[in-house]
Amino acid sequence: MRAILSTLLVSVSVVSNAAEPLPSWNNTESKSAIIEFVEKVTEEGSPEFVPPAERIATFDNDGTLWSEQPMYFQLLFALDRVKQLAPQHPDWKTKEPFASVLKGDIKSVAASGKQGLMELIAATHAGLTIGEFDQVVKEWTSTARHPKTGMLYTEMVYQPMLELLDYLRANDFKTFIVSGGGIEFMRPWVEQTYGIPPEQVVGSSLKMKYEVRDGTPVLVKLAEVDLIDDKEGKPVGIQSHIGRRPIFAAGNSDGDFQMLEWTTSGDGPRFGLIIHHTDAEREWAYDHDSHIGRLARALDEAPQRGWTVVDMKQDWARVYPSR
Amino acid sequence: MRAILSTLLVSVSVVSNAAEPLPSWNNTESKSAIIEFVEKVTEEGSPEFVPPAERIATFDNDGTLWSEQPMYFQLLFALDRVKQLAPQHPDWKTKEPFASVLKGDIKSVAASGKQGLMELIAATHAGLTIGEFDQVVKEWTSTARHPKTGMLYTEMVYQPMLELLDYLRANDFKTFIVSGGGIEFMRPWVEQTYGIPPEQVVGSSLKMKYEVRDGTPVLVKLAEVDLIDDKEGKPVGIQSHIGRRPIFAAGNSDGDFQMLEWTTSGDGPRFGLIIHHTDAEREWAYDHDSHIGRLARALDEAPQRGWTVVDMKQDWARVYPSR
Repeated sequence: MRAILSTLLVSVSVVSNAAEPLPSWNNTESKSAIIEFVEKVTEEGSPEFVPPAERIATFDNDGTLWSEQPMYFQLLFALDRVKQLAPQHPDWKTKEPFASVLKGDIKSVAASGKQGLMELIAATHAGLTIGEFDQVVKEWTSTARHPKTGMLYTEMVYQPMLELLDYLRANDFKTFIVSGGGIEFMRPWVEQTYGIPPEQVVGSSLKMKYEVRDGTPVLVKLAEVDLIDDKEGKPVGIQSHIGRRPIFAAGNSDGDFQMLEWTTSGDGPRFGLIIHHTDAEREWAYDHDSHIGRLARALDEAPQRGWTVVDMKQDWARVYPSR
Repeated sequence: MRAILSTLLVSVSVVSNAAEPLPSWNNTESKSAIIEFVEKVTEEGSPEFVPPAERIATFDNDGTLWSEQPMYFQLLFALDRVKQLAPQHPDWKTKEPFASVLKGDIKSVAASGKQGLMELIAATHAGLTIGEFDQVVKEWTSTARHPKTGMLYTEMVYQPMLELLDYLRANDFKTFIVSGGGIEFMRPWVEQTYGIPPEQVVGSSLKMKYEVRDGTPVLVKLAEVDLIDDKEGKPVGIQSHIGRRPIFAAGNSDGDFQMLEWTTSGDGPRFGLIIHHTDAEREWAYDHDSHIGRLARALDEAPQRGWTVVDMKQDWARVYPSR
């Protein structure tokens, strides 16, 4: 009986979503294209019908589901960790990229890119167990605030994308994150924030070691990179974790190019979505020349590849849930 | 409306399962222990209630969901591949473990263990795309027959375990395979056979490379091991893919020891299940001294660790679906 009731509730939410999906999206071409795609793949009997099991949708995180300026939020987290741990590592005063972090020379740190981020992460997270790291991340996300907006980082998620995730799930899509960010950095908060469970998160990772410490088994993060889930690494991460090709993928930078290429070159109906950051007032405006979230090739080739480019300023009625 | 109807169907199957779950299990302690566990973690308001999202159950494959004698079925598959590919590799005539394969000296091949299996797999699968490999596996599983039973390998799955998977899922568990076998060797057939989708399969893996060949993107399997998902590798594979600790784990050999240890040392209600192969007549009988599926430490420590040991001969009314 409980199962029947809970499904009735699900059905009601489907119906109400169907009445007015994506309320924070303006009525522009982007919104129509998304709805048209979802309707055609879910219409039984249609030649473009896709069975629910194959309705896999993958979303980049940084710049696609939440903001990424003035630098990746995970990098800001790592900087906070470096400052916290510095007293135990006197050599960091002269060793890059740590020295720049401690001097507050954020520009040099940012210029070290995702490789620098991975070094910072390896050095500041190695030796922690998965459980300890989970606690450190939860403490940071519940207290640290963004230097410009003063908001918690988890408040800087995009309301229109939350609605898109809900809309896809209401139509029996399974939604995954496929991010260059650290898999264990995302898992502690994405379930509550995006409704995406930890087993549907793909990200960059460090190797781990299983060991029994004083009778208690633990998984320890090692200082060795396992996967960089960016660029060519994204289709690899998708195959490794999901084992099928998505039919829908959303990204915002050239780091997502291969994920969109892999997704949209499969047979049958496919959807590629690019978030173009065009709103300097409500968020940020950047593309070809940004060192964070650079969007050049994917933007230039979007028309010929049939990818939908979301103009944040034009297409979104609201950016964050709170404003 | 469709959603309501399909849930009514699900509810009906829950009810009918609840009336007589696990029909191919004899009414012994193993069956009672499973049912008691499932009932207590699903009873709302009970102090041992576990929310559906945390009802993660992991199953080893070889020897736990299907047979593994006289050697791992994937090894038999690899042997067939070696014979198929031998004309293109004249050096295999003198190079181990290939030479033993081609001479039909299966004992030497089997003695090379999982390491030998990985070498055979790397050598025979490298260079294939994921799509090509999927086809090769599907062709093999639909035609190759077991040397002793003459059955298709996918017919040699355990009926009681199929019922256990169904029973857990009917109680909102999410079921995963966590196997030492190759992840891409299992994905082509486990969805149809076990009802487990490819994204819920964890296994040993080769590294992959994404590339665009003549305009077509492909993922190519490389001859380099990524993860050996066995022993200490199982908790690592679980964390990497699932990101939470299971509350239920089933295995049959010492290769599953760490998975059961990791699973059952968490807080709250936990269940560890070991399949003990005791039925030489209907299947095989082996434990401490077997070179395939050796079960020694896990069997010896099961009582003190509270793990339920299934005695195949006593506890199962039926072994395979067809007999």
